[in-house]
Amino acid sequence: MATGKRQMKLGASIRGLGYNASAWRHPDVDPGASESFAHFAECARIAEAAKFDTVFFADGLAIRAADEPKGSLCRSHENVELEPVTLLSALSVVTKNIGLVATASTSYNEPYHVARKYASLDHLSGGRAGWNAVTSWSEQEAWNFNRDEHYGKDERYDRANEFIEVVLGLWDSWDADAFIHDVEGGRFYDPEKMHVLDFKGRYFKVRGPLTSSRTPQGRPVIFQAGASDKGLDLAGRFADAVYMAPHTLDAAIKGRSVIRERAAAFGRSMDDVKILPGAQLVGGRTRGQAEDKLEYLKSLIDPLSAMARIAAQFGDLSVYDLDSPLPDDLGDSGKITVSSNMIRKALENRWTLRKLCQEVGMGQQLVILGSYDEIADTMQEWFDKGGADGFNVMPSYLPGGLADVAEHIVPRLQDRGVFRKEYEGSTLRENLGLARPASRYA
Amino acid sequence: MATGKRQMKLGASIRGLGYNASAWRHPDVDPGASESFAHFAECARIAEAAKFDTVFFADGLAIRAADEPKGSLCRSHENVELEPVTLLSALSVVTKNIGLVATASTSYNEPYHVARKYASLDHLSGGRAGWNAVTSWSEQEAWNFNRDEHYGKDERYDRANEFIEVVLGLWDSWDADAFIHDVEGGRFYDPEKMHVLDFKGRYFKVRGPLTSSRTPQGRPVIFQAGASDKGLDLAGRFADAVYMAPHTLDAAIKGRSVIRERAAAFGRSMDDVKILPGAQLVGGRTRGQAEDKLEYLKSLIDPLSAMARIAAQFGDLSVYDLDSPLPDDLGDSGKITVSSNMIRKALENRWTLRKLCQEVGMGQQLVILGSYDEIADTMQEWFDKGGADGFNVMPSYLPGGLADVAEHIVPRLQDRGVFRKEYEGSTLRENLGLARPASRYA
Ligand SMILES: Cc1cc2nc3c(=O)[nH]c(=O)nc-3n(C[C@H](O)[C@H](O)[C@H](O)COP(=O)(O)O)c2cc1C
Ligand SMILES: Cc1cc2nc3c(=O)[nH]c(=O)nc-3n(C[C@H](O)[C@H](O)[C@H](O)COP(=O)(O)O)c2cc1C
Repeated sequence: MATGKRQMKLGASIRGLGYNASAWRHPDVDPGASESFAHFAECARIAEAAKFDTVFFADGLAIRAADEPKGSLCRSHENVELEPVTLLSALSVVTKNIGLVATASTSYNEPYHVARKYASLDHLSGGRAGWNAVTSWSEQEAWNFNRDEHYGKDERYDRANEFIEVVLGLWDSWDADAFIHDVEGGRFYDPEKMHVLDFKGRYFKVRGPLTSSRTPQGRPVIFQAGASDKGLDLAGRFADAVYMAPHTLDAAIKGRSVIRERAAAFGRSMDDVKILPGAQLVGGRTRGQAEDKLEYLKSLIDPLSAMARIAAQFGDLSVYDLDSPLPDDLGDSGKITVSSNMIRKALENRWTLRKLCQEVGMGQQLVILGSYDEIADTMQEWFDKGGADGFNVMPSYLPGGLADVAEHIVPRLQDRGVFRKEYEGSTLRENLGLARPASRYA
Repeated sequence: MATGKRQMKLGASIRGLGYNASAWRHPDVDPGASESFAHFAECARIAEAAKFDTVFFADGLAIRAADEPKGSLCRSHENVELEPVTLLSALSVVTKNIGLVATASTSYNEPYHVARKYASLDHLSGGRAGWNAVTSWSEQEAWNFNRDEHYGKDERYDRANEFIEVVLGLWDSWDADAFIHDVEGGRFYDPEKMHVLDFKGRYFKVRGPLTSSRTPQGRPVIFQAGASDKGLDLAGRFADAVYMAPHTLDAAIKGRSVIRERAAAFGRSMDDVKILPGAQLVGGRTRGQAEDKLEYLKSLIDPLSAMARIAAQFGDLSVYDLDSPLPDDLGDSGKITVSSNMIRKALENRWTLRKLCQEVGMGQQLVILGSYDEIADTMQEWFDKGGADGFNVMPSYLPGGLADVAEHIVPRLQDRGVFRKEYEGSTLRENLGLARPASRYA
């Protein structure tokens, strides 16, 4: 089991039908599965059998795409889904060890509700809950919550900082040994061990206490996924684990060390933050087979669905010819997004619009392509050279893409001694190798 | 099975450890169970085996009691619990037919979140979700949501009306047959069958669409529990089922007919609203045994815990002698609550403070006491005379108090032909005998 060797952490990002913009057209995919419990139970079963640390759900509070290019929206499967915390609660019943991580926005929630839901999930799952704290990014989400536009970056992050402070405070409402159940003396709990937060900030006023006892893992694990400077600060201050979206090993090494330094600047140990780049792993028994698989995945992609993913940035690209090189003056709205790097590459290399669509439609994360051995090599290289503490695996299609990783790549990592064969503990925190947090009142 | 005879509906109200203020001191109760999934799974199993229509969770967004009388708070088990929607999601996995109803406040939530959570629960459970829409009643809840005090009644109900309108609108976002999954033509859904709500009201501005397809039962069932005139209007306008708290058959008949008339006034059929009084059923093989059981339940009650339940109305009663009659001038703050009737009775009958505490500590609902046969008689009388379409059973302690009803009372109702022996359908709506709602766009 534990060899003493540093161990890689693996997340399984199983939102929807997969990250391919047209995953629903894959012959192995059930297009109706995005609201099916059985589908997600199967994905979670595969991930748990392979000893993944987490199943992870990204989330948004709206259909984020406008119908631009016109007719694109109805071609996308990314418009209905289960709410991730209710889904994870149900999954907690059919799993035993795997961590259950869901995204919730600090911009369009109240901290009392978030603290309560994730505490409840932690109780239900025996200590396996994680919260991916994000600030949201689309105008569409603002429109569902009484606003005409999304918050600006400063306000978003000021609010997020306060929000997480409140949530952490509420999670400390009760000491772990507060509930004495003293039938003789008539005391259900020891009043010295209950704490009233009484938070009064700029955005939130929350008295507490939370109606949840201290949770099995002390408190749920905090994940974070913000990419800007303020996002990195938030990660350094609060995150137990961070999702990144680097596209090269150099960028990953730099990104990871920045976050570790921020953690240190906030007085934490650098090793208290696990950095997990997102990655699509496209493998085969040979490199040639992997390349064929990638070509097939690209061939599924509906160009309009891919264009829709970048329409907020570049407007309606459907006016251009699919098989001609992209125009040089592709108007950029100036909104820098995760796809900016790819667009730069596209323009430099005079890609056709079709090729750009195929790349964008694959998802905007790193794709690691190769034989299964080569993929394991690459993952280990990133891990050994300080580019990653592990990976958040983002399958192109579900459950097949995940099953492929579980069957072919995980065993190779296990053989190299960099990934567990058995869970180390029963809580997410234990499996991630994170210390149990002390209460602020301890 | 269906005899054609009108059938009684039964809910199992299984919040916490039961409605006795000191339920945790009952020898059959595990005081640590209020955050235990196994405990609620057992309660739900019992209720489902007995063919109850629902398990139901009341809810609050704070510890509602102040520590008044001083030292009372730590004597109560009503201070930690699981968040009910996450809990019900988990319960959906271990049940098959029973309805899953949770309370959510329209005062301290956003309609988009509520619409989404309950839609998700409806999908997860195959059509068994219900939302008990309440407006909340304590200052403590306001303090956890950025406010210094709770909303006044008008604002509370204006907001509630708008809130429910939005939720209903979001639930109609997609026609039931919108998702065509046309791989050849590349269309995941038919764009004519997706609807943008674009609601702009006084309290809420919500564009939609909801990222949930039309749910298995069309939309979740709406329960309601407000007692005031505006509450009754809300029930008449929106509710599929209403919890009431009458203490006499006359009051129940009157209450039920008022709600049915309001439904008619809103253009609905009177039979579209099922009225379910809350009731504690304390039975035994003989009436004498039932009386002994009641005495025992009362003997468990910690007077301080009982006084805490009415402290907001009457202040600190612990200054009075437990075994003397209550003073005539018991100061009433004027806040009329469900306990007002009981207090009036107490003063008229010159109860001692101890007796008042025992009555209040039993819970503030109707107690039906008698042999099991007598209880079944009473329930049938209320049902036949138009005082009830069924009952929301509120056990004194859990799971024992529920098991007693399942074992001894339900079979008697079944023998009389007024309660099902098998579920009529697979959705909550079908079991309640409610029609499938049409979409506003149909
Ligand atoms: C790997 C990764 C995953 C993300 N997942 C989500 C998500 O699930 N939901 C969401 O609203 N935002 C998500 N975000 C967006 C971030 O929260 C953030 O808004 C975005 O990266 C822009 O960075 P900034 O907010 O720091 O400016 C994700 C970002 C990254 C890098
Ligand atoms: C049977 C019954 C059950 C109730 N359950 C809840 C509940 O779970 N949570 C809550 O906040 N309020 C609950 N209420 C309170 C009502 O929502 C309402 O606030 C209260 O009855 C006062 O009536 P009014 O709001 O119409 O003035 C309940 C009321 C009744 C009669």
